[in-house]
Amino acid sequence: MMTISQTKTRRPKAETPKGFRDYFGAEVTERKAMLDRIATVYHRYGFDPLETSAVETVEALGKFLPDVDRPNEGVFAWQDEGATEGKSGDWLALRYDMTAPLARVAAQYRNELPAPYRRYAMGPVWRNEKPGPGRFRQFYQCDADTVGASTVAADAEICAMLADVFEDLGLGGDYVVKINNRKVLNGVMEAAGVLDPADPSRFEHERGIVLRAIDKLDRLGEDGVRALMGAGRKDESGDFTKGAGLPASAADVVLAFTAARRDTGAATCAALRDLVGGSAIGAEGVDELEEIARLLDAQGYGPDRIVIDPAVVRGLGYYTGPVFEAELTFEILDEKGRKRQFGSVAGGGRYDDLVKRFTGQAVPATGVSIGVDRLLAALTAKGRVGADTTGPVVVTVMDRARMADYLAMVGDLRRAGVRAEVYLGNPKNFGNQLKYADKRGAPVAIIQGSDEAARGVVQVKDLILGAKIAQNATLEEWKERPAQVEVPVADLVATVKAMLEGR
Amino acid sequence: MMTISQTKTRRPKAETPKGFRDYFGAEVTERKAMLDRIATVYHRYGFDPLETSAVETVEALGKFLPDVDRPNEGVFAWQDEGATEGKSGDWLALRYDMTAPLARVAAQYRNELPAPYRRYAMGPVWRNEKPGPGRFRQFYQCDADTVGASTVAADAEICAMLADVFEDLGLGGDYVVKINNRKVLNGVMEAAGVLDPADPSRFEHERGIVLRAIDKLDRLGEDGVRALMGAGRKDESGDFTKGAGLPASAADVVLAFTAARRDTGAATCAALRDLVGGSAIGAEGVDELEEIARLLDAQGYGPDRIVIDPAVVRGLGYYTGPVFEAELTFEILDEKGRKRQFGSVAGGGRYDDLVKRFTGQAVPATGVSIGVDRLLAALTAKGRVGADTTGPVVVTVMDRARMADYLAMVGDLRRAGVRAEVYLGNPKNFGNQLKYADKRGAPVAIIQGSDEAARGVVQVKDLILGAKIAQNATLEEWKERPAQVEVPVADLVATVKAMLEGR
Repeated sequence: MMTISQTKTRRPKAETPKGFRDYFGAEVTERKAMLDRIATVYHRYGFDPLETSAVETVEALGKFLPDVDRPNEGVFAWQDEGATEGKSGDWLALRYDMTAPLARVAAQYRNELPAPYRRYAMGPVWRNEKPGPGRFRQFYQCDADTVGASTVAADAEICAMLADVFEDLGLGGDYVVKINNRKVLNGVMEAAGVLDPADPSRFEHERGIVLRAIDKLDRLGEDGVRALMGAGRKDESGDFTKGAGLPASAADVVLAFTAARRDTGAATCAALRDLVGGSAIGAEGVDELEEIARLLDAQGYGPDRIVIDPAVVRGLGYYTGPVFEAELTFEILDEKGRKRQFGSVAGGGRYDDLVKRFTGQAVPATGVSIGVDRLLAALTAKGRVGADTTGPVVVTVMDRARMADYLAMVGDLRRAGVRAEVYLGNPKNFGNQLKYADKRGAPVAIIQGSDEAARGVVQVKDLILGAKIAQNATLEEWKERPAQVEVPVADLVATVKAMLEGR
Repeated sequence: MMTISQTKTRRPKAETPKGFRDYFGAEVTERKAMLDRIATVYHRYGFDPLETSAVETVEALGKFLPDVDRPNEGVFAWQDEGATEGKSGDWLALRYDMTAPLARVAAQYRNELPAPYRRYAMGPVWRNEKPGPGRFRQFYQCDADTVGASTVAADAEICAMLADVFEDLGLGGDYVVKINNRKVLNGVMEAAGVLDPADPSRFEHERGIVLRAIDKLDRLGEDGVRALMGAGRKDESGDFTKGAGLPASAADVVLAFTAARRDTGAATCAALRDLVGGSAIGAEGVDELEEIARLLDAQGYGPDRIVIDPAVVRGLGYYTGPVFEAELTFEILDEKGRKRQFGSVAGGGRYDDLVKRFTGQAVPATGVSIGVDRLLAALTAKGRVGADTTGPVVVTVMDRARMADYLAMVGDLRRAGVRAEVYLGNPKNFGNQLKYADKRGAPVAIIQGSDEAARGVVQVKDLILGAKIAQNATLEEWKERPAQVEVPVADLVATVKAMLEGR
């Protein structure tokens, strides 16, 4: 026997896929306002927009996903069946960052693009990672890169531009851009005996461990990093991570490097020059840092804004020269209520080998990526978002048959540049209409019943003031500026505009 | 024996995946400028932005892909393995439009969202289709929808807003928004004997064929549509498409319907009322069209801008009431050099059952989708794009050691709001620097060699004027406004600004 529930077809679940999220109203507007301001700075610096497709071939994307050691882990990929009939198609994937597609574009259009090619890119990227609190599988990046410029003036420019972005967003005094150089790090690795210039592939595994350990210096402390460079480290949960197996003397050299920051760029460079000893690559790296410091200094970017800091290494494997990281220095409360610095919101560096993958020819490139969600969170925390998120003026419907009159009112308001709408739900319950206006953050509601219509007037209700009065306004405030006025229909627009501007 | 080529690892191909494309510079800027202007209109009408994730579960997306009869055809889909360990994950897919995600959101957040929920959405959608010329597998849509409003005032508003968008984009006089109603079509189907109100599932297959045939009326002509409604149609290539098998009398009724447009909305509605005969649903549809016409008329949207046109049916199966289509009426030349109207750039309608899929409760909804690429092409054809695509002022590098001086110049220019950059390629070949400036569309180049530096001056070269002079300027023009001037460094910014504003 068939029961009723068996005959029903199962309804689909209305759920955002796991690890993804939706952005509503002000969340979209505020991010857009921020990205527009960043784009203005990028544009003023001469960068042109590029929008690549979200989909790339897995082959073109390569295996450069940050923090992931296994190939094809971490991307959303599928085999293309639709492109060509009869034969199996390419493997396609969603881009995981903006740099891999840029390298592909720089190779593909190398004969048409200006050289150097300066581009910015803003948009979502996708990571096939285990979702966690605040960790999403789709998020925005906002990058600027210069491809085809070997001079460190290009690196210095990226850092200066990053500083200008923060100033422009109202974060002056609250940020610092830190610069280091992978070549210096390589010099230090040589001095520590983990890099053999005659055979660079030796110790590659160990260097990877060292790099990732330094990148976690903030979190693990000096002892934790020392353990990871030596035998290994047991974390709080008891899990053991095998270390690089280096002698303590090697760890001493590396940790002296990360602690080499001095009061001035010149002093830091001098300390670094000592540390890299006789390493040619190390000396080259220090030369580059000195040149960058000189150029930035000449432009007035002092160490209060851009500083050489050897503790910055960046986790990505593909960097070959200068690396940068931007930190916001103001304090926020963490989830346990403790004060801590807001921290990193952007990072980048020089990657001279990404285009070479495609063409075989070395193409020097440098750039930066801003973590859009983190930066927006910072602006929110500082109250610097600056997007208008006012709701629409809502014209209520007292008499369904007079919809044309209500539409005429919103028409007048819109033509005057006022955001406005007629309530389009079921008008029977007037309370629902006011609840709707409240939920939309409407600043003003318009009411015209048959009585008002007969007299050619409307009621204009200041909902913001009304809410204030309901809460805590004084009698004087109420008298001086009543929350609801009756005006002739002809004065509707002027009355609403005055109310909106009065706040 | 191993040859050298065997030891080489194969290099990845630098190619955009088949059917996808990249957008450069002005292509991005111009689309963004257009979308920003559309968003301003949507916002003024009280719509709020929504940005859903690009990825949806296949289950939530459903089988509503336009023009595709088979389930799961036409989407890029893959099985999620990363979300939950140990058990196989959901099937995920890239969204193919903005409506399916909206229906999911409206169901998922039904207790939190304002009702009605008015949202706009702009962004890429993906279709797993065979790529063809001008047919891409990723493209932009720009939608506005009202969910939870059963009144046709919501449909009328969408049409009025669409008209306002075109006016705002400078297309006044070049567009018409056409409105029809699926209920009228159903009434006509009843009159033609292809819809039995007592058993709506009967003739569903035949009605689908009729619907798609009418949608192709423009292309196939009346005879082609008649053939598809009857036994079938052989196209130019000899391929035979089986028809709906209806008698000629049924085709007469349907074709009389599509030809029922009269000079005024009232006359068209009267003609339709005759055609639907005694059909209750048909009469309801005509009532709705009359109400829409009345509301739009009261707002001043005459039939020169918004018109009732029974020839519009829209291919999508899910529409349940009013349907709209916006056409641009100016003429362009097609690929064979023949004049034709630009045609459809937006479409939409009422779909009362999409949210019901999830919740079981009927939620009335209506909306429109603008085809972004087609509309942008139209604006380009009409010269109405209106985005600033000027390249940066390029400061050339005559002396590598004086990079700091050149950077100071661009710093001054940028602070004055002028888009500017230093040439960051290899400066050895000066010709390359000017070629670069040309490729970037630079309006001005700055030159300062050691001689000029010693005298504290710079050369400011007007590249736009220079190009004009090289082509066809008269001697007088040349004398009056020389293409290159030497000025003190202190006057650099003022000179450049005057040059930029002088054009």
